Amino acid sequence: LKACGLVVEYNPFHNGHLYHINCSREKTNADCMIAVISGNFLQRGEPAIIDKWHRTKAALQSGVDLVVELPYVFAVQHADLFAKGAVLTLQALGVNYLCFGSESGEISAFVQIYQHLNEKEAVFQARLKENLKKGLSFPEASKLAYEEIGITNDKVDLSQPNNILGLGYVKAIFQYHTGITPETIQRTKSNYHDEEIKYPIASATSIRKDILLNHAITERAKSAIPEATLTALETYYSKTNTYHQWEDYFPLLQHMVLTLPENLLKEIQGIEEGLENRLKKTAKIASSFQHWMDLLKTKRYTWTRLQRMFVHILTCTTKTNLQTIHTITSVPYVRVLGMNNIGKQYLQKIKKQISVPLVTKLQDLTHSFLTIEERAIESYYLAVPPANRDLVRRQDVQSPIIIT
Amino acid sequence: LKACGLVVEYNPFHNGHLYHINCSREKTNADCMIAVISGNFLQRGEPAIIDKWHRTKAALQSGVDLVVELPYVFAVQHADLFAKGAVLTLQALGVNYLCFGSESGEISAFVQIYQHLNEKEAVFQARLKENLKKGLSFPEASKLAYEEIGITNDKVDLSQPNNILGLGYVKAIFQYHTGITPETIQRTKSNYHDEEIKYPIASATSIRKDILLNHAITERAKSAIPEATLTALETYYSKTNTYHQWEDYFPLLQHMVLTLPENLLKEIQGIEEGLENRLKKTAKIASSFQHWMDLLKTKRYTWTRLQRMFVHILTCTTKTNLQTIHTITSVPYVRVLGMNNIGKQYLQKIKKQISVPLVTKLQDLTHSFLTIEERAIESYYLAVPPANRDLVRRQDVQSPIIIT
Repeated sequence: LKACGLVVEYNPFHNGHLYHINCSREKTNADCMIAVISGNFLQRGEPAIIDKWHRTKAALQSGVDLVVELPYVFAVQHADLFAKGAVLTLQALGVNYLCFGSESGEISAFVQIYQHLNEKEAVFQARLKENLKKGLSFPEASKLAYEEIGITNDKVDLSQPNNILGLGYVKAIFQYHTGITPETIQRTKSNYHDEEIKYPIASATSIRKDILLNHAITERAKSAIPEATLTALETYYSKTNTYHQWEDYFPLLQHMVLTLPENLLKEIQGIEEGLENRLKKTAKIASSFQHWMDLLKTKRYTWTRLQRMFVHILTCTTKTNLQTIHTITSVPYVRVLGMNNIGKQYLQKIKKQISVPLVTKLQDLTHSFLTIEERAIESYYLAVPPANRDLVRRQDVQSPIIIT
Repeated sequence: LKACGLVVEYNPFHNGHLYHINCSREKTNADCMIAVISGNFLQRGEPAIIDKWHRTKAALQSGVDLVVELPYVFAVQHADLFAKGAVLTLQALGVNYLCFGSESGEISAFVQIYQHLNEKEAVFQARLKENLKKGLSFPEASKLAYEEIGITNDKVDLSQPNNILGLGYVKAIFQYHTGITPETIQRTKSNYHDEEIKYPIASATSIRKDILLNHAITERAKSAIPEATLTALETYYSKTNTYHQWEDYFPLLQHMVLTLPENLLKEIQGIEEGLENRLKKTAKIASSFQHWMDLLKTKRYTWTRLQRMFVHILTCTTKTNLQTIHTITSVPYVRVLGMNNIGKQYLQKIKKQISVPLVTKLQDLTHSFLTIEERAIESYYLAVPPANRDLVRRQDVQSPIIIT
């Protein structure tokens, strides 16, 4: 059984994701497609529109064979740490390939950049640090550092988030000697149609905006998602009366920032360089999450960086909590969210070789990452009215989703 | 200018309070009536139905000459600490009398009890401690301790909250050598009518319940409050769209309890003996504040004790924050909330003698008590919709209320 890993968020799962799965399977000729999925909070620092369980089910119904969770401690992080967590998780599962989407679809370009970078790692890091000191945001600083040390490639624009992530996967794959073969497929552009693609492709962002703006799944959104996603979205809403978005958490964040003593607040991950003072000041003025972000945003504090910080405030995740993720070279466990028959077979096969515990219920294992995971789960569901909450929250202490 | 102190909450100010002021003035023949008022959170661990500023204004319009704040650190405490804070505040202001309401109206009974208690203090404390260990609540344990050491008095039932508070004032008055003369007037019973009292008396609790249940000030409530209170209630509601109650804060409390790491949670004042675990467990099940309280309440954890704990969770007040209140023998400042001409004259008179700063704006002084006060202010107003919040919150950084 050959396995191919995909690193995903599926927020929500759409036709572009379907295309990615199908192409990846074809390209790698894998028997088992394994998705490492961000949980309830995502890389760009946002609550997922519906919870991980409903996103997992849609993924399983759309061609993924096994879904495992990217731990919160890696999921709400910049590209390099996000990629590290995902790649180490796939390594633990013994996958043969990791296949990501990119603009060019040429894996050799990524490998080349990685090799150049590897030779010049020290210089690159020094430049990056300097550029960050100048007040540039992380993406800007790293893009400039690449240019400064002469790493450029016509095929890979290193200011594109997807390419940054792709390079992150390639780096982690080689750096941690995972034995995984990286692959990439060309992304389909939004609204791009051709003979092969018989369904419209829209970005997850535009689909979410559409749904949140209209408080319903519009015809436009419906056309961009498979049936399974429509069902997942509708089921989640019928249970919870909620599509999650930042504004739901605004009062909780405001309360935390206004009442946590300053010395505790600055322990929270992402609160650097006196930001705690600006946070406290702006918290008094902000009339909405959006307004708060507008008050806080600067060149240095990008939208994404601030959003990630807000996730960590919401879940009370401290710098100390995250210390180990920088140094570990393997994940402490793999949490299984769902599978079909092929996924089940795959797990059976690797069970004897896998060197870390497979966690199927939250309470199966005691680990600091899972303690944080639990806080992330509890915080996330606070956007759901109390009376509806139990309908969705209980999945985390039950068995994974199994479809046949 | 002779001054008489009153220790009050005015939640809201009603006809019984009016009666208390008039009788106290008559009994002591004082020129200036000074009220020490709990701020936005009250002794029994509840948010005040309207903020301290609107309650202050109603008090000034109803016969009080000077209103000062009982600091949060003393206000949300059991009777002895509450009384200590109030008495030390009145001492700092150099008042001649403190006049409280009691069932009997005989101050000699209270003084007698105090004297007996004083002789047997060590035995009393030992008994109290033992009774608490048995799992009795504080009021029960102290009532039993009084009986065990033979302190009983026909005139003063020491299981009555008002008598417990009264004894607290008398104790503090003598213990800290304040030079204040204690006085008491007989409380009028709710719904009690006689020739002298031309207006109906209802308890503040029943008035609040009436207002909160009906989302309006009913005719029954109107009959029990003076015009000034009606105006205060209506003005506050027109500005904020809010009458504060615990349910407003339920999501914030749930979030704090579910996400604060256990080691931080048990640092919060009032969370003793592994209560943090029960709090976390019940937080997941509770569907409302009322439900949560029902799940938590035991013989040992009385309603009041739990409510106080919840106030401290809401304001993130730790045991360390409150350490000094046990040992200090004078208040570090007096915060003035409002005055009329007589109050102004009184302040002019004492300005030269007073040994602590008079704080008129929150930002006038840096003190750990005021840092906590600010957190209490910010938390309290989170029940008000963000768009309306500034209309009420700004008073705390402005000058006191002055009526002419």
